[in-house]
Amino acid sequence: MTRTVIESKTKTVTIGFDEPFCVIGERINPTGRKKLAAELEMGDFSTVERDALEQVACGATVLDVNSGAVFTNKMAEDPRYADNNFVEPTLMKQLIEKVQAVVDVPLCIDSSVPGALENGLAMAEGRPLLNSVTGEEERLELVLPLVKKYNVPVVAISNDDTGISEDPDVRFAVAKKIVERAADFGIPAHDIVVDPLVMPIGAMATAGHQVFTLVRRLREELGVNTTCGASNISFGLPHRHGVNAAFLPMAIGAGMTSAIMNPVRAVEMEAIRAANLLMNHDPNGGAWIGFSRILDAVEAGASFAEASQAAAEGGAGRGGRRRRRA
Amino acid sequence: MTRTVIESKTKTVTIGFDEPFCVIGERINPTGRKKLAAELEMGDFSTVERDALEQVACGATVLDVNSGAVFTNKMAEDPRYADNNFVEPTLMKQLIEKVQAVVDVPLCIDSSVPGALENGLAMAEGRPLLNSVTGEEERLELVLPLVKKYNVPVVAISNDDTGISEDPDVRFAVAKKIVERAADFGIPAHDIVVDPLVMPIGAMATAGHQVFTLVRRLREELGVNTTCGASNISFGLPHRHGVNAAFLPMAIGAGMTSAIMNPVRAVEMEAIRAANLLMNHDPNGGAWIGFSRILDAVEAGASFAEASQAAAEGGAGRGGRRRRRA
Repeated sequence: MTRTVIESKTKTVTIGFDEPFCVIGERINPTGRKKLAAELEMGDFSTVERDALEQVACGATVLDVNSGAVFTNKMAEDPRYADNNFVEPTLMKQLIEKVQAVVDVPLCIDSSVPGALENGLAMAEGRPLLNSVTGEEERLELVLPLVKKYNVPVVAISNDDTGISEDPDVRFAVAKKIVERAADFGIPAHDIVVDPLVMPIGAMATAGHQVFTLVRRLREELGVNTTCGASNISFGLPHRHGVNAAFLPMAIGAGMTSAIMNPVRAVEMEAIRAANLLMNHDPNGGAWIGFSRILDAVEAGASFAEASQAAAEGGAGRGGRRRRRA
Repeated sequence: MTRTVIESKTKTVTIGFDEPFCVIGERINPTGRKKLAAELEMGDFSTVERDALEQVACGATVLDVNSGAVFTNKMAEDPRYADNNFVEPTLMKQLIEKVQAVVDVPLCIDSSVPGALENGLAMAEGRPLLNSVTGEEERLELVLPLVKKYNVPVVAISNDDTGISEDPDVRFAVAKKIVERAADFGIPAHDIVVDPLVMPIGAMATAGHQVFTLVRRLREELGVNTTCGASNISFGLPHRHGVNAAFLPMAIGAGMTSAIMNPVRAVEMEAIRAANLLMNHDPNGGAWIGFSRILDAVEAGASFAEASQAAAEGGAGRGGRRRRRA
């Protein structure tokens, strides 16, 4: 049975076919979050700390830490800041330090910059997940030695030097190549978590079908765990959380074992908690019943993050400060 | 490709692997609805008419009509009313007449009383679905001749004279027996819609898994369409609509092609509309985009039924009378 083990200082999370779905919180990522990037540029990590605490309270068991910031002001003063190879290695260390100071969950070290990945690996306590390798030759040669050196699992994204194929058979073949190449480095398949790539259903009508079929094949033929950027599926659509909340249970039913996603969303987390129950990954329904108290608090007016944090602190979200949902 | 064709006076609905999920509205059923039973006893069909209109507006493409009423007052006056073989045949005719007068959708004739089934078959316009046969010998011998005589499709429930097995292999074997027995009568497999029986997940932790596995087998090995009483899955659980809303997409992903359910529920219908989109059964996302306007109206304060009815009348639910959700 495939088990991908990741660890923080004291906690172990196992991604596996017989485990509850692993929610990897995506919010600590300055890409496309201008305000966060500006804060980081000023050395202000308060949003990062809040995002870490909120995501864990809401149900993320792993936190993705992405260092892809663009420091526009510093860049104007010092041209070295235009190069992410200069910015990210330092920023990754700082991010991990700040996150580890407030939460004890395994991290997913996320960067396209090799120096940031290496600094992240050096800085992270326990056994982090590395994000990511692709089927691109340069990337394979760069990342797999790090995976081997630090003995960590890695997210493998199924695109290669020819780009992202719209043909799911090609994406399967790329995943297979990465698993085989990793084996050459002595990295076992259970330490490869394949991202089959989720396309927007609004742009490609077969996007859902492709993912469900690929996840099943990846599991049955390669025996690997899988992950995805779940919200891509609904890109550009109205009421996209409704699409996400159907996609996640369907992907879980097809065998998907984790996702990189925003856990501070009641509707998606409700879908995942219910899917865990339906997959018989919630013994005696204890997690669902606990979660239903958070939903009660949300119905009574609390925000999902507030209710989740109150529950995490033992108050189950009842009787807290009430305010209308946004 | 398996296609189960059902018809009203002018409309055809096809249940099939390549069709949008078929929602069979369950509300016209006095079982457990004391107020409705009392109305029917008084000859008042206004709730039935309203339920027919609302369910169709909300997205049911087939309506189940169940005649299982207990007429307690009449029973006190006339002992014949204690026998459902006396009550239901007449009531079924009345129900079908009233429903057909207000909506033009195929019906699902639902009774345990043979005379009610036969009267329903005689009364229904087009090609109704018969609900149901089981693997019980008496029931097979009674219902299959009706199915053959009227050339209609039938719901086959996978229990037999030994009751409902908790072993999914036994339930599969019962379904297989019904399909084979039907073949002896000259009834093709595409006219059998198997209900694999959904157990409450709160009582049986494997209930979800069982259904997903059974649906896949029924489809791959017997080539039949499937249905279920979807809400059984969440019986006894808090926030059961959240469980239903994850169960339905997972069942659809596994190959389930219809359900007998309450369509006057935004959360379940949203899950089904999204699942249709993700299964590539919603060309260009037109149905999802139309449905999202109904969700907009619900967010603005309309009830789901109001918003759906306004949309069905061409107003897309906007600008109607607004009231808070219950």
